[in-house]
Amino acid sequence: MSGSVRSIVLRRRPQGLPCAEDFELVTAPCPVPAEGEFLVRNSHIGLAPSSRMRMSEVQGDQSYDAPTRLGGVIHGQTLGQIVETRHPDYRIGETVVLTAGGWQEMSVCDGTLVRRVDESVAPATYWLGALGVSGLTAYAGLMEVGALTPGETVVVSAASGGVGSVAAQIARASGCHVIGIAGGAAKCRSLLEELRLDAAVDYKAPTFADALRSACEGGVDLYFDNTGGPVRDAMLGQMARHGRIVVCGLVAEYNGLGGSTGPGWLPILARQLTVRGFLMRDFLHLEDRFVRDVGGWLKQGRIAVREDVTQGFENTPEAFVRMLSGKTFGKAIVQV
Amino acid sequence: MSGSVRSIVLRRRPQGLPCAEDFELVTAPCPVPAEGEFLVRNSHIGLAPSSRMRMSEVQGDQSYDAPTRLGGVIHGQTLGQIVETRHPDYRIGETVVLTAGGWQEMSVCDGTLVRRVDESVAPATYWLGALGVSGLTAYAGLMEVGALTPGETVVVSAASGGVGSVAAQIARASGCHVIGIAGGAAKCRSLLEELRLDAAVDYKAPTFADALRSACEGGVDLYFDNTGGPVRDAMLGQMARHGRIVVCGLVAEYNGLGGSTGPGWLPILARQLTVRGFLMRDFLHLEDRFVRDVGGWLKQGRIAVREDVTQGFENTPEAFVRMLSGKTFGKAIVQV
Repeated sequence: MSGSVRSIVLRRRPQGLPCAEDFELVTAPCPVPAEGEFLVRNSHIGLAPSSRMRMSEVQGDQSYDAPTRLGGVIHGQTLGQIVETRHPDYRIGETVVLTAGGWQEMSVCDGTLVRRVDESVAPATYWLGALGVSGLTAYAGLMEVGALTPGETVVVSAASGGVGSVAAQIARASGCHVIGIAGGAAKCRSLLEELRLDAAVDYKAPTFADALRSACEGGVDLYFDNTGGPVRDAMLGQMARHGRIVVCGLVAEYNGLGGSTGPGWLPILARQLTVRGFLMRDFLHLEDRFVRDVGGWLKQGRIAVREDVTQGFENTPEAFVRMLSGKTFGKAIVQV
Repeated sequence: MSGSVRSIVLRRRPQGLPCAEDFELVTAPCPVPAEGEFLVRNSHIGLAPSSRMRMSEVQGDQSYDAPTRLGGVIHGQTLGQIVETRHPDYRIGETVVLTAGGWQEMSVCDGTLVRRVDESVAPATYWLGALGVSGLTAYAGLMEVGALTPGETVVVSAASGGVGSVAAQIARASGCHVIGIAGGAAKCRSLLEELRLDAAVDYKAPTFADALRSACEGGVDLYFDNTGGPVRDAMLGQMARHGRIVVCGLVAEYNGLGGSTGPGWLPILARQLTVRGFLMRDFLHLEDRFVRDVGGWLKQGRIAVREDVTQGFENTPEAFVRMLSGKTFGKAIVQV
């Protein structure tokens, strides 16, 4: 390949919610794969809140990945086609998802953190979402970390998001009573009609506390937390004795990294709760089982997929900020 | 029995640390056991921070027991001798520990929450502490909830307290590297010399943060939390990846029930921690194993017992406040 390619780099570390000035669109010569590498032309970028975490420079106990360096390409997942290869196992024309593709038009990969897309199972972009990192995160968090049991009452926050929408539907497909939390009446309606959850609670409504209490009557066995913040704090009071909280994401805390506070721990003691943080990377061994289960539910129509697609590579930062602001629905994707 | 007996009742609900005016010493006719009950003359009262929790009127997610009613006898454990019995299984003269004896000279018991004292294993008062509720709490929290594994690095807060001193020594007897946290140089010296812990950190010292970091270098596998508050917050940054935090007590939060805040949850996510609250009452089935193990370690001199004994029933509230203020060392006991 020759010519130049575009990428989006970190111009400065965001304070709070990122803004346009924190990013810079740069052009550079197309990267050349070395021996053992291949080159991917990215058709889509998958957005995830965890990229925000890496934009801050924080201590190791506040972030699970090294920070993106200033001037470095923003971390993120991509979907694309191999256009050049010096890797023995990958051929030109294969469609792959790169976990570390980054916000760029072309990515070089050495064969790690890559996954082949099987379009006989589901459309290619699903491998960025429901069948990708988002889906595996939801699956591992519920099944392994949360030890989901049929018949339980499960609450998922950010239930209209990339991970949350899959988590909520996995729980429903597994025979649980599922309550989704999302922001706004439209999203909540969609949780009921599209995702067919048992109940939906709008955290932006003035009646949130009462509505949550009423939806969770009888106590919550498993809370799948994507947000932290006030929604999580409210949920602590709704847990059943011996309830479990799976900490998957803390989008409410990413913008204020290091300075955030949380609830007191008395409910953890009084209700004998288990709170467990996890990272998807510890559960890669579940991948085959995950694709079989979730792929099966997708084919059966038991899991509905919603994607929030933004056109144009240059609009990636804007789409990212929209997602962090809770304005996207489903997996947030940029079509390059 | 005839005559009158003394008890200490809740006069008003404490704001923050309790004071003398919150309690009242009252005299009433000696209770009479009904059919199926027996009467115990209490020789000792065992003090525990959880009694403070019950002095506040709070919601169910902030406390694990019903509040003590105004005018009601303060909840607490007692040790004493049976002086009258209408219960088929209990004879006059037996020495027993009553979990719900209460702060009173004489207690009636229906045969629930009672335990016979075996002085061939250990002195009677030990059954209020190391071999009693405190010890079982420590044992269950470490062994079952915390899944203690030999060779691990373990930190215990309030390591000079009734539960903490046993927990720290159980961990040491189990082959762990044990760091105790306590307030003041004298207590810390004693953690090293009497309890023979591997390290002691003084949370009242201005160098606390640095000393803790240095003692915990390499990361903490298991943190047995008796305090909550700033000590717990500092510990979050010292946890190893996949570390476990056992929430046994939150004495720093009991005085401000309902209004306390805690740390943000990013360390739980970033370090993939498991935080688990527990109550000893869920682990009564461990009692035989506990008495065998801890009784054995006591006999071998591998667990040292320290008691902080106050003379005189009327001094119970004062001793209780001293304990909540961190001024007692070892199991706090009142000799009636």
